[in-house]
Amino acid sequence: MEIVNEHREFSTQGSGDLIDITRDLIAALAKSHLKKGNMTVFVQGSTAGITTFEYEPGLIGDVQEFYERLVPSDRSYHHDETWGDANGFSHLRATLTGQSLTVPFEAGKLLLGTWQQVVLAEFDNRPRKRLVVIQMIGK
Amino acid sequence: MEIVNEHREFSTQGSGDLIDITRDLIAALAKSHLKKGNMTVFVQGSTAGITTFEYEPGLIGDVQEFYERLVPSDRSYHHDETWGDANGFSHLRATLTGQSLTVPFEAGKLLLGTWQQVVLAEFDNRPRKRLVVIQMIGK
Amino acid sequence: MEIVNEHREFSTQGSGDLIDITRDLIAALAKSHLKKGNMTVFVQGSTAGITTFEYEPGLIGDVQEFYERLVPSDRSYHHDETWGDANGFSHLRATLTGQSLTVPFEAGKLLLGTWQQVVLAEFDNRPRKRLVVIQMIGK
Repeated sequence: MEIVNEHREFSTQGSGDLIDITRDLIAALAKSHLKKGNMTVFVQGSTAGITTFEYEPGLIGDVQEFYERLVPSDRSYHHDETWGDANGFSHLRATLTGQSLTVPFEAGKLLLGTWQQVVLAEFDNRPRKRLVVIQMIGK
Repeated sequence: MEIVNEHREFSTQGSGDLIDITRDLIAALAKSHLKKGNMTVFVQGSTAGITTFEYEPGLIGDVQEFYERLVPSDRSYHHDETWGDANGFSHLRATLTGQSLTVPFEAGKLLLGTWQQVVLAEFDNRPRKRLVVIQMIGK
Repeated sequence: MEIVNEHREFSTQGSGDLIDITRDLIAALAKSHLKKGNMTVFVQGSTAGITTFEYEPGLIGDVQEFYERLVPSDRSYHHDETWGDANGFSHLRATLTGQSLTVPFEAGKLLLGTWQQVVLAEFDNRPRKRLVVIQMIGK
């Protein structure tokens, strides 16, 4: 049994940026030569999230509108008064989404469905560098 | 340390079908003979989810109404125009819910609470066959 | 490769109590002497959750208001009729939040961001004792 950690950095364009990172996960698994186990994908920070959806333009728009409806960006939040950076909505969206996902793999392949992409969601109100940790445990 | 993967297929009845799979998880753990470790439960696909709640008729109804209120099925979504299958709401509900859950076990028992069932949630607008991967890592 | 389980009990003050447990996680990791692997944090029960956010008074208030807006506590739920304990809203909030989180660690340090605290969320409408399982797998 082995543990392999890979770090990837992504440059995001601020609130609403949804980046398909599935290809990076597949590449990290291939590089590890592990065949059976699981992969944990974790994004560092409190204004980003890891989620999954079918990555196509229609649904990307739906996801963006869903977050806007659920946690409006034009409302003020108590957090905004703490630092003056007006990103209370970003924090709430990240809390709702979560920063971690675990996906099993077999025969060297992640068991994702064909239309099930792993997506890094930027919620912050400005471009950020995001560290994503890809950790594989297996044989 | 060992890794054991089990696959289970479930036939669902379409949107709002909530299936208690706790018994299947307990059986998979017993079969593995593992005593200490964790179990990852993962459903393949972008219109289903894995969640937990007390599986009783009242709460089943509450969960169904909650999803309907949060992501109405009678609204149109951009995704509906991509494939013409009118299940944009299914995708958004699945994204909100997540497809993966990790539960520790000890002495051969999952550390779930008595009223904490693991539930496969079908969000798609038609009956589906769902592959659930039950992966145990432990000793 | 080793597996270490730690149990921690927390006394909560009922609905809306949000407890930063990051320090407990760091202490458990230090005690384990593990250097590389991942930690799964799991709370037992169907009316509590594990989440992450920047733990500061403004955001604590925002998170509380967010849950109240999304799943109002003054509405009645079908579940309330099952047991007569009027905590249907607690169950729905817990289902939305999830009870499990996995965080990778390296060089003996959890890879959490500086403003990314792990929080035990009490949703039940009365004080509870909560069992949190901290499981580390690694070397």
